[in-house]
Amino acid sequence: MSQTLVMRPERLFPASAPERAIAQRLFKLVENLPIISPHGHTDPQWFAQNANFANPTELLIQPDHYVYRMLYSQGHSLEVLGIPRADGSAAEVDPREVWRLFAENFYLFRGTPSAYWLNYVFNQVFGLECRLSAATADHYYDTINAALATDGFKPRALFERYNIEVLATTESPLDTLEHHQTILDSGWGGRVITAFRPDPVLDPAYEGFRQNLQQLSEITGLDCFNYAQYLEALRQRRSFFARMGATSTDHGHPTARTEDLSPVQAEQLFGRVTTGSPSEQDAELFRAHMLVQMAAMSLEDGLVMQIHPGAYRNHNAQIFGRYGRDKGADIPMSTDYVDALKPLLDRFGNESKLSIILFTLDETVYSRELAPLVGHYPTLKLGPSWWFHDSPEGMLRIRRATHEVAGFYNMAGFNDDTRAFLSIPARHDMARRMDCVHLAELVASHRLEEDEAAELAVDLAYNLAKAAYKL
Amino acid sequence: MSQTLVMRPERLFPASAPERAIAQRLFKLVENLPIISPHGHTDPQWFAQNANFANPTELLIQPDHYVYRMLYSQGHSLEVLGIPRADGSAAEVDPREVWRLFAENFYLFRGTPSAYWLNYVFNQVFGLECRLSAATADHYYDTINAALATDGFKPRALFERYNIEVLATTESPLDTLEHHQTILDSGWGGRVITAFRPDPVLDPAYEGFRQNLQQLSEITGLDCFNYAQYLEALRQRRSFFARMGATSTDHGHPTARTEDLSPVQAEQLFGRVTTGSPSEQDAELFRAHMLVQMAAMSLEDGLVMQIHPGAYRNHNAQIFGRYGRDKGADIPMSTDYVDALKPLLDRFGNESKLSIILFTLDETVYSRELAPLVGHYPTLKLGPSWWFHDSPEGMLRIRRATHEVAGFYNMAGFNDDTRAFLSIPARHDMARRMDCVHLAELVASHRLEEDEAAELAVDLAYNLAKAAYKL
Amino acid sequence: MSQTLVMRPERLFPASAPERAIAQRLFKLVENLPIISPHGHTDPQWFAQNANFANPTELLIQPDHYVYRMLYSQGHSLEVLGIPRADGSAAEVDPREVWRLFAENFYLFRGTPSAYWLNYVFNQVFGLECRLSAATADHYYDTINAALATDGFKPRALFERYNIEVLATTESPLDTLEHHQTILDSGWGGRVITAFRPDPVLDPAYEGFRQNLQQLSEITGLDCFNYAQYLEALRQRRSFFARMGATSTDHGHPTARTEDLSPVQAEQLFGRVTTGSPSEQDAELFRAHMLVQMAAMSLEDGLVMQIHPGAYRNHNAQIFGRYGRDKGADIPMSTDYVDALKPLLDRFGNESKLSIILFTLDETVYSRELAPLVGHYPTLKLGPSWWFHDSPEGMLRIRRATHEVAGFYNMAGFNDDTRAFLSIPARHDMARRMDCVHLAELVASHRLEEDEAAELAVDLAYNLAKAAYKL
Repeated sequence: MSQTLVMRPERLFPASAPERAIAQRLFKLVENLPIISPHGHTDPQWFAQNANFANPTELLIQPDHYVYRMLYSQGHSLEVLGIPRADGSAAEVDPREVWRLFAENFYLFRGTPSAYWLNYVFNQVFGLECRLSAATADHYYDTINAALATDGFKPRALFERYNIEVLATTESPLDTLEHHQTILDSGWGGRVITAFRPDPVLDPAYEGFRQNLQQLSEITGLDCFNYAQYLEALRQRRSFFARMGATSTDHGHPTARTEDLSPVQAEQLFGRVTTGSPSEQDAELFRAHMLVQMAAMSLEDGLVMQIHPGAYRNHNAQIFGRYGRDKGADIPMSTDYVDALKPLLDRFGNESKLSIILFTLDETVYSRELAPLVGHYPTLKLGPSWWFHDSPEGMLRIRRATHEVAGFYNMAGFNDDTRAFLSIPARHDMARRMDCVHLAELVASHRLEEDEAAELAVDLAYNLAKAAYKL
Repeated sequence: MSQTLVMRPERLFPASAPERAIAQRLFKLVENLPIISPHGHTDPQWFAQNANFANPTELLIQPDHYVYRMLYSQGHSLEVLGIPRADGSAAEVDPREVWRLFAENFYLFRGTPSAYWLNYVFNQVFGLECRLSAATADHYYDTINAALATDGFKPRALFERYNIEVLATTESPLDTLEHHQTILDSGWGGRVITAFRPDPVLDPAYEGFRQNLQQLSEITGLDCFNYAQYLEALRQRRSFFARMGATSTDHGHPTARTEDLSPVQAEQLFGRVTTGSPSEQDAELFRAHMLVQMAAMSLEDGLVMQIHPGAYRNHNAQIFGRYGRDKGADIPMSTDYVDALKPLLDRFGNESKLSIILFTLDETVYSRELAPLVGHYPTLKLGPSWWFHDSPEGMLRIRRATHEVAGFYNMAGFNDDTRAFLSIPARHDMARRMDCVHLAELVASHRLEEDEAAELAVDLAYNLAKAAYKL
Repeated sequence: MSQTLVMRPERLFPASAPERAIAQRLFKLVENLPIISPHGHTDPQWFAQNANFANPTELLIQPDHYVYRMLYSQGHSLEVLGIPRADGSAAEVDPREVWRLFAENFYLFRGTPSAYWLNYVFNQVFGLECRLSAATADHYYDTINAALATDGFKPRALFERYNIEVLATTESPLDTLEHHQTILDSGWGGRVITAFRPDPVLDPAYEGFRQNLQQLSEITGLDCFNYAQYLEALRQRRSFFARMGATSTDHGHPTARTEDLSPVQAEQLFGRVTTGSPSEQDAELFRAHMLVQMAAMSLEDGLVMQIHPGAYRNHNAQIFGRYGRDKGADIPMSTDYVDALKPLLDRFGNESKLSIILFTLDETVYSRELAPLVGHYPTLKLGPSWWFHDSPEGMLRIRRATHEVAGFYNMAGFNDDTRAFLSIPARHDMARRMDCVHLAELVASHRLEEDEAAELAVDLAYNLAKAAYKL
């Protein structure tokens, strides 16, 4: 007895009739706007090679830590799910069996954004009309598998079907961007750009930091163990990334700390962090110093700076040891911005030409620190609800906590930040709906006129991201 | 002119018609389920002796710090209210006069959960149909007093009338559990179990810590000033508690800090904290170390571990000096979990057989730390909104802040945590209603199907607590 | 094509019909109550001299950092806006041109409380019936300008029209209160009182601290570099302020820290902070000590104590250097109360005769620390949502987060805290409406009876502030 899967037109909208009607009118204005996806983690190889995706499990479960962390939390091991280990190996698992396990446990996702995104993909992308459960597992597997083998489900076809105007991936300075080059050379019209994420060569605590500098030396022909040449190498890679389409950098430090060291101090610190094993204090200080250096370079080359701090990465030591990074065990921490950003803002905060987008995993700073900061400093913009907060409740929380102090026009619109390519329209659909819910709330209580809300809906869905990321 | 007291069938439900209707349908499914009360502070002696309660003041005011702290905050002294002092004495007060003072000031409780619980008890348990005020104080006193003298209002009768399937009390390892033994021996069918709360012998800053160890030595015949025997004594007492029905332990440390010291370090630290007066740092370190030891023992004996950190106990020095612990002057503090629990989780976080339920008084960690932690680690479950947050708004806040990331199935259902026996059904009634309000919100905005919500309502009201506490 | 500006009677009320109806009924009870404004920053000179205000720009933009910080955040310099510099000079700007810039950018304020306040003033005070935009900029400027030249828009006339029962300004102990004296001498019936804000002579980090003590010595004839005479000088100034109508003191320290030093320690510390440049630690310790001294004096002279901690003042170093204090660059910080207030509460927390009103910019402490503290200590009351949180969402957040634990009767009602005199009724209108929204929520879900809510609405709008500030 399988149950119907329906994506109702009024989904996510409030039940109350006057608010729902407003939300629906606003949503009509943004529903079909092209997707601007200025920050994410899809694989450029997909668009370069345009090969068919393998099977439902490899596409939807194994790369998505949102999905398998929930199964893991309920006692299903990563082995059983066939998650690749740090050494590249993986347990031999039958993808259909993994899918069945997922299907049996799909009830665990009730009320989560993952369920929303997945159901959207199942229904809107694959045309499935019954709910996923043990009973329908094989039907799902076969239907999706069959679709994936067709041309219409190749990456570029989906990109076009999804009406994506621009999609940014995220690469390390050590990346050759060969896939982006292939895309550019291919003559395909899809705009897939990169973003410059230098954590592996800025963070002395990053796995393989010294090898990374070695590799950076090789790529640039500079001696990246010499501080001046190291800075020059970063400048060169930023310039290369910009030529390949990048309009932004991204920085995922544990904290938002910034420091503006003197050249002499900086050089000494650089010496300490590149030889031997640096202390935690030195590593933190170097990351802090380099954020200010990155801002200085952004002022030169115009790349928009994204600061994504506050995750305790790889919190689960056993999982990290066996499976490596990004396995659903990053946990947010209390994060300060007001003290942390002071050195950066003292130097560059009043530069209208520099653009810095702030993100957080610590929702307590929305109203306390971020809204007042972006509501004052010309350089600062507020990014959307991030990661664990990229959900209906999370989206309402950030809007309600910030719009009154930050103003809507100090916001950077939405970005989906996803590894799960198929879910991109689902995520933008959710974000656009929730913005309409929020605006409808304001209109219904006469805090906005509906014509103002109509403009804001379009700005939040499209214009603000395009402007903030210079796209 | 006394006003009517009515507990409306639709109380606590949203005003909006579509949501209200859904909430009502869901509530019908859970309204009459038996009560699982796996954590609380009722007195087992009540059920052992089954004596009549004395009078309204002694039953409803003097033991309930929720109630008298509000009167105290408005300038009514604990003397006047007849609250017992630390030395066991109490001012001679006329219980009827105290009741009158309470009645005159009952308006102070407007909008508080105490008002809800008390009105429920007045109306549903004692059949009172006018509101409590100066005008009705004597009528209330006489009505309740008369009822309390009858058999129907004896503890066991109320336990049965309340449809309590299981009720856990909380005892120290120094407790002989004689009342629980009496209950077991009595042949009465009510399931009243204990829970193991070792703070008095784990926390070097606890009043009388050394005497407590002395007493533990006497009870167990072991030398509890020897570290190995101390651990063995704890093991024995846990085992005794488990035989007496306990399925859980409870830990009310000031912080959630854990440490996994080596045996040598631990033994040295134990030496320091059991001789002379330990430093604050040593006391904290020892509590932290012992939490990991308790987890190790839980993995052996299967007791579910509850961690209840974050209260600044006895904040009011004058009140503590004169009246002792638990007088309404415990104040929550900012509490970290992500760093604090790391040593414990490094060692045991991936053990599916170990079950740890986390509570907090710091709501900022709901979405930032707790939901991500319980949404990843197999050992962890999220406890309900606790203490100051055990209220309609508090319940909605924890659900809205966590369900999307934690998932509902990483939650431990509800527990009432009360000293006020009479209010138990009122508290479960409130919790069940608020869960239905939350679920109705999700259904009305098409984030859940109603059949999913129906299952979740029953799980949240009954199954999850039963499973989490192994009842 | 200018659009209509309407202040709808049902503005800010919920869209849902049953809640809206309740909110409207409650609001009718409070809409026309006199305004109690016990804390604010209007200029007493206005009421002393009763001169006409100059022009719309000088009245509504240049003194209001809420307004110009938003323009600044979008790249409009303070120079262009004609904001006065720290040295008293200002760029020569045409006020009409500044007004036009403001009008063009008025869309930036969409959804902010500033837009609400301004639209209220435009419509209700100046009778404007089209929205402010580039197209209507001149019409606005001319209309407002014309009105300002009339007698009906002089400060005292507006005070009367606004139905203000009492208005407190805020002055330093160094102020001669000459304007208040002029008002008292004038025979005008308006009650404009002062409040004692001693930060400039209590905070060793305040600009010109030593000169301030020098000036205090001159005013009092005491040697304020001698600790005992310094305390005596403060006592004298408090007494003078009280004679001039003050009923309260106000303390805007960076943190809520308090310390109760011994006289010897205090005298030594005083020596250190008044000679040479004190360390940050000493400055903090001295502020902390002086808060307890202020409480001691309040117990003597009956002045209500307001504690307003948690702002990182003058965060933007360049703006501070050029323009000085209060230029929209104060950013809230994470603020602790539970540890910070302990020394003060240990000494005075149980004094029913001492009244301390707590404010915060850190909303995380609403439910975690402030509601439990004010719900226990007889000395403490909870102030309204402050500054960045003085907005529809902010007001709902504080009420929902605190009323259940604090109780309504441990709250201090509303205060507008404004420099923008014209906006005072707009702010009280917003606060009264939002309190009715909150109460309607409780009534609609049967958490309050409507007759209880009716009493509470009047208490929150009028009685509680009057009582808390002893007015």
